[in-house]
Amino acid sequence: MELAMIGLGRMGANMAERLARGGHTVHGFDPGEAARQQAAARGIAAHATLAETVAALPSPRVLWLMVPAGKIVDDTLAQLQPLLAAGDTVIDGGNSNYKDSQRRAVQLADAGIHYVDCGTSGGVWGLAEGYSLMIGGDAGAVERLRPVFATLAPSQDSGWGHVGPAGAGHFAKMVHNGIEYGMMQAYAEGFAILKQKREMGFDLGALAEIWREGSVVRSWLLDLTADALKKNPEMQGIAPYVEDSGEGRWTVAEAIDLNVSAPVITLSLLERLRSRDDDSYTDKLLAAMRNEFGGHAVKKE
Amino acid sequence: MELAMIGLGRMGANMAERLARGGHTVHGFDPGEAARQQAAARGIAAHATLAETVAALPSPRVLWLMVPAGKIVDDTLAQLQPLLAAGDTVIDGGNSNYKDSQRRAVQLADAGIHYVDCGTSGGVWGLAEGYSLMIGGDAGAVERLRPVFATLAPSQDSGWGHVGPAGAGHFAKMVHNGIEYGMMQAYAEGFAILKQKREMGFDLGALAEIWREGSVVRSWLLDLTADALKKNPEMQGIAPYVEDSGEGRWTVAEAIDLNVSAPVITLSLLERLRSRDDDSYTDKLLAAMRNEFGGHAVKKE
Amino acid sequence: MELAMIGLGRMGANMAERLARGGHTVHGFDPGEAARQQAAARGIAAHATLAETVAALPSPRVLWLMVPAGKIVDDTLAQLQPLLAAGDTVIDGGNSNYKDSQRRAVQLADAGIHYVDCGTSGGVWGLAEGYSLMIGGDAGAVERLRPVFATLAPSQDSGWGHVGPAGAGHFAKMVHNGIEYGMMQAYAEGFAILKQKREMGFDLGALAEIWREGSVVRSWLLDLTADALKKNPEMQGIAPYVEDSGEGRWTVAEAIDLNVSAPVITLSLLERLRSRDDDSYTDKLLAAMRNEFGGHAVKKE
Amino acid sequence: MELAMIGLGRMGANMAERLARGGHTVHGFDPGEAARQQAAARGIAAHATLAETVAALPSPRVLWLMVPAGKIVDDTLAQLQPLLAAGDTVIDGGNSNYKDSQRRAVQLADAGIHYVDCGTSGGVWGLAEGYSLMIGGDAGAVERLRPVFATLAPSQDSGWGHVGPAGAGHFAKMVHNGIEYGMMQAYAEGFAILKQKREMGFDLGALAEIWREGSVVRSWLLDLTADALKKNPEMQGIAPYVEDSGEGRWTVAEAIDLNVSAPVITLSLLERLRSRDDDSYTDKLLAAMRNEFGGHAVKKE
Repeated sequence: MELAMIGLGRMGANMAERLARGGHTVHGFDPGEAARQQAAARGIAAHATLAETVAALPSPRVLWLMVPAGKIVDDTLAQLQPLLAAGDTVIDGGNSNYKDSQRRAVQLADAGIHYVDCGTSGGVWGLAEGYSLMIGGDAGAVERLRPVFATLAPSQDSGWGHVGPAGAGHFAKMVHNGIEYGMMQAYAEGFAILKQKREMGFDLGALAEIWREGSVVRSWLLDLTADALKKNPEMQGIAPYVEDSGEGRWTVAEAIDLNVSAPVITLSLLERLRSRDDDSYTDKLLAAMRNEFGGHAVKKE
Repeated sequence: MELAMIGLGRMGANMAERLARGGHTVHGFDPGEAARQQAAARGIAAHATLAETVAALPSPRVLWLMVPAGKIVDDTLAQLQPLLAAGDTVIDGGNSNYKDSQRRAVQLADAGIHYVDCGTSGGVWGLAEGYSLMIGGDAGAVERLRPVFATLAPSQDSGWGHVGPAGAGHFAKMVHNGIEYGMMQAYAEGFAILKQKREMGFDLGALAEIWREGSVVRSWLLDLTADALKKNPEMQGIAPYVEDSGEGRWTVAEAIDLNVSAPVITLSLLERLRSRDDDSYTDKLLAAMRNEFGGHAVKKE
Repeated sequence: MELAMIGLGRMGANMAERLARGGHTVHGFDPGEAARQQAAARGIAAHATLAETVAALPSPRVLWLMVPAGKIVDDTLAQLQPLLAAGDTVIDGGNSNYKDSQRRAVQLADAGIHYVDCGTSGGVWGLAEGYSLMIGGDAGAVERLRPVFATLAPSQDSGWGHVGPAGAGHFAKMVHNGIEYGMMQAYAEGFAILKQKREMGFDLGALAEIWREGSVVRSWLLDLTADALKKNPEMQGIAPYVEDSGEGRWTVAEAIDLNVSAPVITLSLLERLRSRDDDSYTDKLLAAMRNEFGGHAVKKE
Repeated sequence: MELAMIGLGRMGANMAERLARGGHTVHGFDPGEAARQQAAARGIAAHATLAETVAALPSPRVLWLMVPAGKIVDDTLAQLQPLLAAGDTVIDGGNSNYKDSQRRAVQLADAGIHYVDCGTSGGVWGLAEGYSLMIGGDAGAVERLRPVFATLAPSQDSGWGHVGPAGAGHFAKMVHNGIEYGMMQAYAEGFAILKQKREMGFDLGALAEIWREGSVVRSWLLDLTADALKKNPEMQGIAPYVEDSGEGRWTVAEAIDLNVSAPVITLSLLERLRSRDDDSYTDKLLAAMRNEFGGHAVKKE
């Protein structure tokens, strides 16, 4: 197919390249000069304006958004909408909140434009291995994009699918990331216990390697963890500081809204918050309380 | 009554003084010269050997142990037992593990010696306000000690009681401390949330003071917390480092053995462990994993 | 003072009565005939329309809203606003979300009307013991209401206070309830552990009674818990089903927004959600997974 | 090699068969007639007594124990030890507590017998796919058993390894299972959230299938979960009741002993305990408390 990739950051550029390799004609767009040059070096002709990009596309147009979630998506849509026509399709492949996607789908539908929300997993490995794609939106629009999804996914018929109405793709991706938080935390806790058992002298990378084959905990995340542990078993130079990117918070909030108790996903998020607070008021106050009632000495700062 | 207080540390000396004030004749014992002198200054005649202490007591003898839990209790009992006779009573008022108390009760019963385990709550405030006493052991032995308990407790008839067979007193105290961990953590988390909401400009000490009267969360711990917050609202000079003293761990282990899910007491303990780990391997590995799959930058140490 | 109590449900009627007893002139309002009759029986003259209520008040008018949080507050304000004049004051004493209170304060300020948000704790006991009042809003407006707060609170000078700008009162109440969830869960877990230790034969009501005096965990909630345990130690006829009323959810959401890890308050909420799900899909799927990888039998439904 | 498989339950029989297929001579032992007959049908000659089994083995003897953890291992070793000679090797391939394995290794070493503890993962799939083997003990003894491990593992050189001294194999397996609990819980919570979002109409089996290729959460557990979800999306006939088999508890206890906060592994265990308590005293007491302070109605049982 012929389509535009709006946003040529790490994810967008990789996806554009995978599409081009798969025989699609990809028109890139990025407001940044450097991003456009890098895309060009990878064989993606990149435009500097949305107007040019849209003009270069045949009708009905297909545009894939790969921009940071939030206001930028709305701003981009606000600019795009006047340039588009009924029958065109916009796919949001980023990590948008599913409620935003529901809202945007309704808004574009009023102009006859199809809006498809696509949860995209695979990270930096997607270029080589393919992306797992959870797709929400109108079934007809999704079906017409089959060649695109089939190329981005690991294979023609696997790793992608239409999972529900508008918002369903991003909802599924949100929960996917919540699960990811929980899995990561489970592995990290386990390796921390093994490491702390100093008298056993475990080689964590070697142990992870053993688990990669035949064990119940084998996974792609374990493959990567084994790699990280072999490269840097002491995690030297890495601060105990863990970012979160939104989907975990949304999953926690959504679970509570749905009255589903999801303690492990929730705690995984809270541990990330805790990792970024090296001066916990909670803990200081606890130490002060112990001093108050029991006369227990506090540790001086 | 006439009895011995074995161990004149902060708790033991305070309890000896409260008993003496209440009209009891208290023979102190402590191996430390300084502790004995301080006790003497508070009107407690203190012996330097267990043999002297035991010799000074009328039969049947009553000895209250207030020594650190664990090996010291066993060592003290090993020294005491040959000095005692059938009909004597030993009370362990410290924070012993209830299983140890069960074992010790059996062991001393073989020699006809009564063993009473007394969970003691109240901390440094017990001298003035009285101690809450949860008492395990033989009902007859407990009943004979009524005057002692009635003096140590806040009042004759409240704040103390026989709660069950050998070990029951220390079991109840263990769970008491587990609850204490949970309550403390709940307050500390709440105040940390209020503090972080900077635009509200909360005066935490003043707010705690408001809650002390009429609110659902009013408690003695809140009284102390209000005091701590007024004295040092920024918790200056206090490290975010929280000790635990064993009972919390035992409560968590016991709950699991009993197949009771106690997430709040459990998490309260884990947060204390976490507070003492400012270089969490778990968190470093999580940061490394994020870098592996998503190319997310780690924070440098 | 002379003021109106808008809403004569359990809380509103009690507060109206406490105010009347304290010498204030209280004009009641409730749309329900039964509520008005009950109020009248307690000496509160109650109007059937807001217009009548407002007309009965001297200027500047003072109206205390005690209606369910959410849409009803907005609806009531929409009806009230045209009836009020610059200089009047409306107090929301219910469990409103603090963000709603901030919005409403701005909206009424445009009409020169003071809006005071008052977090009210004390439950059904407040009539007799007084309410703990956390008050947000303009300092001048709060100061003018001093006689009202002083009467509702446990005493003239304690249990109430101005804690910050608009919304601060409801924010503080929200966190208060989060703490309450954590404390309740800590107690409940502790008593469940004690109960499960059957060989000890604990009398939970008697043990709670012991803790009420002198222990570190003594509190008003423990007083009530002791009462509940004495009345019904086996909790006969009570389903293991725990409601939540919103503030706990808001506290959890707010903590995450503020990047504060509050695991105990959070887990206390999740346990309530879990208590209401007696057919957990999570647990069914876990059983199915164990069967898949290990051939472990599932329990049949 | 020529070796004995002691215990022909599901795991033992499968491992014996995989070894026999791999060219090893396997002497089976099981006290149960039925187990022996089933083994014979799978080509494993099975003895009814340990004495016969030991007598059939060439020196130095190799015996693989695959019996339930705990007392049965000790009983079996007590019977075996007099039959064995210096230089023989016993491997415990079951889920023994690592502390027991440390103790047993010392005890057998006194008789010159090598004791190797082998954590074995792979469940019912191990026969076809090979087992992941974490091996503790003396390096020389482990090296001599290389042909056995290489056959049981997924391949000659992967999925197995010597991870440390006596007990290290079972320690690693214990933590492996703790991680497994956390991963399972993360998946199960995620799917429960998706299921509860009814308006999206997710086909959970289809979604799991999408995630199996290219996503960050792809894993062998997900493969099995996808299968379970496709076979029985509503989990019909499956009670929400999740067993645990010991290693999770040990991991939690060990983490606490090591002062490592492992909240996700811990909560995963507690959720299993909770799943088996459909009449939670904690929740009943919470409901009673709410009634006490707020007059909130309890749900009747």
